[in-house]
Amino acid sequence: MTAVRVLARADELATHSAWEDGILRAYLTPEQSRVNAIAAAWMREAGLRAWPDEAANVCGRRLRDDDDRPALLLGSHLDTVPGAGRYDGILGVLVAIEVADRLRDADLPFALEVVAFGDEEGTRFGATLLGSRALAGGWRDSWLDLTDPDGVTLRDAATLFGLIPENIASAARAPGSVIGYLECHIEQGPRLEAQGRALGVVTTIAAAERRMISYRGEARHCATPWELRHDALLGASEAIIAIERIARDQGSPATVGRIRVEPDAVNVIPGFAEFSLDLRDGTAAGRDATWGLIRHELQRIAVERGLDLEVTSTHAAPEAPCSPSLRAAVAAGIRATGDADPIELVSIAGHDAMAVADLTEIGMLFVRCAGGISHHADESVREDDVAAAIDALEAAVLHLADQHR
Amino acid sequence: MTAVRVLARADELATHSAWEDGILRAYLTPEQSRVNAIAAAWMREAGLRAWPDEAANVCGRRLRDDDDRPALLLGSHLDTVPGAGRYDGILGVLVAIEVADRLRDADLPFALEVVAFGDEEGTRFGATLLGSRALAGGWRDSWLDLTDPDGVTLRDAATLFGLIPENIASAARAPGSVIGYLECHIEQGPRLEAQGRALGVVTTIAAAERRMISYRGEARHCATPWELRHDALLGASEAIIAIERIARDQGSPATVGRIRVEPDAVNVIPGFAEFSLDLRDGTAAGRDATWGLIRHELQRIAVERGLDLEVTSTHAAPEAPCSPSLRAAVAAGIRATGDADPIELVSIAGHDAMAVADLTEIGMLFVRCAGGISHHADESVREDDVAAAIDALEAAVLHLADQHR
Repeated sequence: MTAVRVLARADELATHSAWEDGILRAYLTPEQSRVNAIAAAWMREAGLRAWPDEAANVCGRRLRDDDDRPALLLGSHLDTVPGAGRYDGILGVLVAIEVADRLRDADLPFALEVVAFGDEEGTRFGATLLGSRALAGGWRDSWLDLTDPDGVTLRDAATLFGLIPENIASAARAPGSVIGYLECHIEQGPRLEAQGRALGVVTTIAAAERRMISYRGEARHCATPWELRHDALLGASEAIIAIERIARDQGSPATVGRIRVEPDAVNVIPGFAEFSLDLRDGTAAGRDATWGLIRHELQRIAVERGLDLEVTSTHAAPEAPCSPSLRAAVAAGIRATGDADPIELVSIAGHDAMAVADLTEIGMLFVRCAGGISHHADESVREDDVAAAIDALEAAVLHLADQHR
Repeated sequence: MTAVRVLARADELATHSAWEDGILRAYLTPEQSRVNAIAAAWMREAGLRAWPDEAANVCGRRLRDDDDRPALLLGSHLDTVPGAGRYDGILGVLVAIEVADRLRDADLPFALEVVAFGDEEGTRFGATLLGSRALAGGWRDSWLDLTDPDGVTLRDAATLFGLIPENIASAARAPGSVIGYLECHIEQGPRLEAQGRALGVVTTIAAAERRMISYRGEARHCATPWELRHDALLGASEAIIAIERIARDQGSPATVGRIRVEPDAVNVIPGFAEFSLDLRDGTAAGRDATWGLIRHELQRIAVERGLDLEVTSTHAAPEAPCSPSLRAAVAAGIRATGDADPIELVSIAGHDAMAVADLTEIGMLFVRCAGGISHHADESVREDDVAAAIDALEAAVLHLADQHR
């Protein structure tokens, strides 16, 4: 019955949104405050001592682990992109709570904790993984000056939320206090479905880099002859098509998700166009090789169209490999559900585990999602897959306990 | 010395802007209210009886024309695009005031009026030429429901401005009350400069059509494999490049000035992309032939990428030919400045004259502008060219007077 409860809870969390039509739940918002309180209550029901940490993550530790033994962390995030589904991140938190509930009286050689991170998506302040980076000791106080689209600083948002901005870095766990991190997450891709599998073992999280790319030309009246035009949007359009071609050839997933032009008037040639690029690859070296080809093409377009090119890197992460012992634990967990030969996957999407990898070993369990759809209202999972995920994560923890005895 | 005064007045009007940095003056705004009051005062100084009409245009009629003889109208507009220069439209109003000033005591066979239109650019409500269409009898009350980017209706904006929305249509002049309309305007192109001429005769105003074009695909996580993507921005980018290629081949100026995507998040594939298309040609038939080719390509892209295409026409105008008699008057005016063989030009840009053509004969005088630059802060004119324009417009009026005697 726990899978049913997980799905019902995901539905309940989905009602806490900044949008009436579609889900949007960003870091340090009233919506986060509400889901944090709800998640803490569920953790308490599962036999965990729950508390909000200094970075607005919600943590829960088994009541019987009232000692300073190092902990195995199970977790994921509760924040969303705009227009999100109801399982990305959330499912991992809810599955972790179920596993903690089942293991509330288990005799384990480590403490057991559940963590619900407050920011993974980076929806509000641009920089991602703020919650998990704080817990992993990677918080930087310079982020307090980041602003949201309304110009509110992270510092002011944190204060309004009830945090002490200068104390956020104290959310960092001491390296010796944690033995590993296991995250259950929907695949956000179609490979499990294509292969008829409910679950998969993640081998590594892909390297990613995000950039803002801009062309500056000349804003001129639309009566300007072609040969005098320096149209920044034509440059951007050509670049976006080139990025698709190059990244596809190289096998590096690339997405241009944002674009804006100035002056943005129907009868004025755009003098400025800016767009985002999210570029990923199994390895940082592969990602950088693809970027080299793209960069060369961006420059060629700039020269050909008489535009000024500017590129700013806003986020970069190397690949984050899952540790052999946690991969083995996840595989053992999946085998316990009856899948004798679990398939292995590279995670193209980033996850909290990437940030936590700076603190401790990581492992990830992927759950099949319909059509590979994510970051969309149509995101969906099967009840039997969720049941399998709970069983597998529980078995993985018990496998790890055996290894640690 | 009148050219100096025109340039000083253009500088003064440029200070009335919704933006501190750059000029923005839209219809029915406090900025328009201020420049209307200033223009009315200048008209009075020039010996005109000045009044605001029901559509927020400012009109001025020679004091000596206190009768109901049909009038020759001289005019242009005072509104601007965002980030505008200081001469587009404004120069024509200021030159007309100078000519009226010079002719305040002239014995003319028609009444003489100056009109400063309140909306030509369509910056605020999307639809263009609202002021001149009202004067020409083309106002439609359905426009009262148009909204600006903040969601304010034209109805509410008009009321706040002090207009009576239901009375705007009363700005229409009776067809028999007007004998013609002459407009002086910067060229907004480089042809006069390239040929070393200060002034030119406009033969016709190009046909134009504006459309909003959108592709709808699927908003999905950036981990989605290429073959499952239906990226609306990739469709739009390919379309924008195709529009350039086709329109250039066909000799039809085309501009994509606006674009936006949804959900506009760095790590989500755009599920929706919408962009504007402004397409022009010397004739409506040529414009429509080019559109046919573009439309075909837009559809091909939609099919290839699995996107839904939608196209809405937001504005369409056939070509507006200048009348033989007003072309002759403008040519005679230019000859009076010493240019024995005035060059003739098609106006790619639209002008108030297009709207006024529904009411009466039109004629246009183009003035050289530096580098063909317009709709940009760098828009500039030479003082001696402005002096020539005033002389030419005055001479054109006198030529027309001779014809009418």
